[in-house]
Parts: sequence; C-alpha cells; structure tokens
Amino acid sequence: MRATLMYGAGDVRIENVPDARVIERTDAVVVVGRACICGSDLWPYRTMEHSDTGRRMGHEAIGIVDAVGADVRTIKAGNLVVMPFAYSDGTCVFCHEALPTSCIHGGFFGTGEADGAQAEALRVPQADGTLFVLPVGKDDALMPSLLTLSDVMGTGHHAAVAAKVGPRKTVAVVGDGAVGLCGVIAARRLGAEEIIILGRHADRIALARKFGATDVVSERGDEAVERVRKLTGGFGVHSVLECVGLTESMRTAISIARPGGAVGRVGVPQDETMPASLPAFYNNVTVSGGPAPVRAYIEELLPDIIEGRIEPGRVLDRIVSLDEVPDGYRAMNERQAIKVMVEL
Amino acid sequence: MRATLMYGAGDVRIENVPDARVIERTDAVVVVGRACICGSDLWPYRTMEHSDTGRRMGHEAIGIVDAVGADVRTIKAGNLVVMPFAYSDGTCVFCHEALPTSCIHGGFFGTGEADGAQAEALRVPQADGTLFVLPVGKDDALMPSLLTLSDVMGTGHHAAVAAKVGPRKTVAVVGDGAVGLCGVIAARRLGAEEIIILGRHADRIALARKFGATDVVSERGDEAVERVRKLTGGFGVHSVLECVGLTESMRTAISIARPGGAVGRVGVPQDETMPASLPAFYNNVTVSGGPAPVRAYIEELLPDIIEGRIEPGRVLDRIVSLDEVPDGYRAMNERQAIKVMVEL
Repeated sequence: MRATLMYGAGDVRIENVPDARVIERTDAVVVVGRACICGSDLWPYRTMEHSDTGRRMGHEAIGIVDAVGADVRTIKAGNLVVMPFAYSDGTCVFCHEALPTSCIHGGFFGTGEADGAQAEALRVPQADGTLFVLPVGKDDALMPSLLTLSDVMGTGHHAAVAAKVGPRKTVAVVGDGAVGLCGVIAARRLGAEEIIILGRHADRIALARKFGATDVVSERGDEAVERVRKLTGGFGVHSVLECVGLTESMRTAISIARPGGAVGRVGVPQDETMPASLPAFYNNVTVSGGPAPVRAYIEELLPDIIEGRIEPGRVLDRIVSLDEVPDGYRAMNERQAIKVMVEL
Repeated sequence: MRATLMYGAGDVRIENVPDARVIERTDAVVVVGRACICGSDLWPYRTMEHSDTGRRMGHEAIGIVDAVGADVRTIKAGNLVVMPFAYSDGTCVFCHEALPTSCIHGGFFGTGEADGAQAEALRVPQADGTLFVLPVGKDDALMPSLLTLSDVMGTGHHAAVAAKVGPRKTVAVVGDGAVGLCGVIAARRLGAEEIIILGRHADRIALARKFGATDVVSERGDEAVERVRKLTGGFGVHSVLECVGLTESMRTAISIARPGGAVGRVGVPQDETMPASLPAFYNNVTVSGGPAPVRAYIEELLPDIIEGRIEPGRVLDRIVSLDEVPDGYRAMNERQAIKVMVEL
C-alpha cells in the first residue's frame, strides 16, 4: 500500500510500505477514505532533521473498517468510522474521566507510536475505544465536517471549554488557522456574546466572520493587546483561545485576558517555559488546555454537524489526492490553503 | 503614633509617624488591636535595597474603627473589624465578580499604595467595601483565627478553590508555611480524601497533621515527585496547592498533578516565566490562582471559625508587641516561628 513519509524538513514522499494489518487482538485496520494535513504537521515540515527511515505522517481520518482483531467487540468490518488523533482504550481511569489523550494504554498516530493516516490504510490500536462509528453513508456531503471531529473541531471546542466560554462571555481567539477558526465556531456554539479573532489573513478572517466572529484584530503584540482592551471597555476578554503555541501568541493571550478570566491553550507550546506568568498571577487568570480529548467530544459535536448547525468542514479549502500530499504540505506551509483534505 | 518601617534588607524599625487620619471621604481610621508579619514580608526583608524614607509594612489586622469619612455608610466608629490585605470598593465590576483584589479603585496595604498595618493605627481606603465587621467581642479567644481571615486562611482557601479541591479528590500542598498549613485546613474543609503536605519542618508538619494532612513528603525535586506518585497509584494528585512561589516549587507542583488535574498557586511567583509549561500542556493540567480575594471569602469561612470547626489561628505561634516587631521578622526569617502575631 502507499503511505506518506517525511524524511526531513520539506521532504515528504509517497512510498510503498507493507500493508496495514491486525497485530494486536485489539487492533482494527481502517481503509482511509479521507485524511488531512494538520497545522501541527508543519512543525516537522519546517524543522525535522533528516531521517533515513522516514516518519509516517497523518493523524486525522475517516474510513471503512477492513478487519478487526479477535478482542474487538463493538467495531465491525464495514463500519464507516472517524478516527481521533489519539488512540485510547475507552476503559481506563482517564478515559472514564473524559481525558482519552492521557489513556494509560493510549498513544498518538503519526508520531512513531502508531502509523500515519495520510495513507491508503492504517492499523488502529485499541479500536473499540478509539474509533467512532458514523451514522451516515460514506459519500455524504457532510464528510469534510465529520472529518474535523478527528482533530480541529474537537480541538477548537477544547480551547473554548478550557477558556470557560459561555453565554454573556467575551471571547478572543488567537490565531486564524483551522483550529482558531473552529474555536470561533465553538465559542459561538457555546453562547459567547462577542468573539474577537486575532489574525491577518483575509481569506481566514472572512471565514471567521461567517463562523461568528464579531471583531477582527490584525495588529500583533502590544498593539493587539491595546486594541482588544479598547474593544472590551479596557478590561480584556473573559475567555481567550490560544490556537498558535508560540511564546509571543501565549504572551498576547494572557495579556488580553480580563482579571479572573481564562486562557484555553491548544497550540502546542514551542517553549519549555510559559511567558507572562506574573501578569497571569496578579490578574488571577487561569491557564488551561492541552491536547484535546477529541474522542470524548464527538458525541456532543456530532448532532450539530449532522443537523447543519455548524460547518467546520469549510476550513478544508483544498483537496488533494494521496500522490499530491507533498504539494499539499507546500501549499499549507506557504499559507495558500487553510487546511488540506486528502481524498483517496 | 508608632509604625513599622522597613529601610532595606534586614532593617526593620519602629518609629513615630504622623497619626493616621481620614483623607478621602470613603476612608476609615482603624486602631489596630492585632496585626501579623507575613511570609510575603520576608521577600523585602531579604532583598530590599536601602530606602531613605522607608516602607510602611503590614497588611493584616483586626482593630476598632476610630473615625470614618463623610461618605462611609456601613462602617461605624466603634466597630470591631477585620481588614483584608487589599482594599476594594465593593461595588465595581470585579468586586461584583468576587475578585476584589482586581477592584478598579482598589490597592494593597503596606505596598506604597496604602499604609501598613504593623502600626498603632492606619488609614483604610474604601472602608465600606474593605472592612468586615466581626460579630464577636474584641477579647474573644477566637481572635487569632479571625485575624487569619485578613490573609493566610483566605489565601489557603483560594489555593484550594483554584486547585478544584472537592470530595474524593487527592490533594498535595507544596509548602509548609502559614499559607500551606491553611491550605491543608481548606482542603480538608472542602472534602479532600487524601492530603499530602510537602515540607520538612517538624513543628509545621506536626501542625499540618493536626489540620488533616494524611501524608508527608519531605523530599524535594524529582524525589518528591516520585514519592507523591507512589502515594497516588502512579498518577499524581487531582489538586495541587502551590504555596511557595519559587520556580522549583512550581515545577514540583505541576509535576505532581495528575493528568487533567489543577494547580492553584498563591505563592507570589519569583520569576517572570512559569516552568514546566510543556508537561502542564501535555497533561492538560490547569494552572490557576493569584492574589486571594480574601474579602470575598470571609462570609463563607467565618462561621467555621466562630463555631470552632477550623482553627487557622494556630499558625500564629509567636506573639510580639509592636516594639518587638523587628525581632519577629528575624524569628520568622530564621524559621523559629511559623507566623508572628503582633498584639497592641
């Protein structure tokens, strides 16, 4: 079968690899129908050192179950499933606490712990806990939005939950990538009164407005902080969704939070330390978030997609074939696409 | 009148100063009956550069109202009051949100914004919002415990609230100072199942056990983390109360939090950046807390003190007169006392 391998910064190849197969009794093999390129895939795309063996890429997929191991109980061959970016057994203490990303028997796709989803098929560990059977046909027009349940819609939702978004809250979303845009959807869905997006790419801002953003701040740094304060009576916002992960974006996020407010961070931090710890402390600003437990959010978000109330699939603004995946990385890296969907 | 002034590290003097008097129409003058030396006073005691004019010290007091300004409505001369470490108008948006430490017209005693409480009397701005009239006589044996409502009991409670302590939760308290010990009281009061105190001073640990600590970890750094994990099935605790403020104590606090857990920090951070941001992120650990809105907690905590269910006054293990305050600083700095009460 064919799969995507990254051999180093800028070096993405589609190659023949051994067919995916059941190894553990709790595995399933999924034939991938749609996958994505993720903003987080761009970090290694920019910085990865050369590897002789390459790294299997991709962690978002919708597909059809092809085979299951002897201990798989609920997932059946033929099921149309969505695959979260992390696998989890669904039974451990953290899965029961709705934190499957910390599953004791879990791990992450496309990281070396498990295969990548930018491929014709992949082995899915802990199939019963990981996969979610979709109540629709595979050619459904909702597929792009359902595919975002793998990662970006659940991640934007997690940022909003961690930032304590709710009715009558003012919200700022730092970052206009796919996750930030899904954060706008999530903030509106949770009842936010005012949603300020911090970003500067015209196409993304336009989509943010369609998703419910009420204000746009295209400045950066201190100027952005000043603008947000002006928009919020001088105080800052109740809830900040940090969807970038850079030191400067985190500093901005904390600086625009109102006293007693909360920052929900889902951008993978690029630094070991967190900036602006002192202002966060003096303002009693809560910092929360992390890898989104998207598996735990699917049941809540799915009806809104099925019934058309939210359309996160609109962030997938370019479609490529598997062979075109290297060009998809290039396009996302050059910001020619918000997020790339791979159709097989 | 006499008051405490700090002129630099190790240089605390009792001097004659102009009598406290009403300046603003919202002021009260309080004749101090009891005050405290605070762990946070030890930071300038160790590091303050020489000042020719000196800094008025102290931010915790119980006393009798001597005079009030023309616009003071609820506080009357003769009232026995407890004074939180911050003043606040009680009417602004943040006061209404139970965050008086961010009051728009507020500030902090003993910082240059307002006078210090280690004195015969002091001017209290925003008297109606700041002062709390105590429903007891001034010689009541409960005075030491009521005095902790100025700061340490409310601060320990804030750490516990920020760390989401509740029934069936496992809790760790980092630091065995007066705030850490009050954190133990607060954690037990909120129903924690297991309370691990991290500290190494025999007298404080003994008191922590009386307050409800179930386990003691006297190691530091990685060894402390390993011990706490062993005590908690390998996972860490749900709630960590960070009551120190040093980089290493914060790193320990984050490292002993269970995935999905929370750190409530009330130790004033000694660094601009926060350590261990990445592990906090990967484990979805929430970091919350800041200056405790103790004024907002008095009504909740007072009945438990009045009815004898909690005895935070036991952390006040040395009593000095105003003239002996310099020796009180020395004793606390040399850890001969947990916390010093000043009786006038």
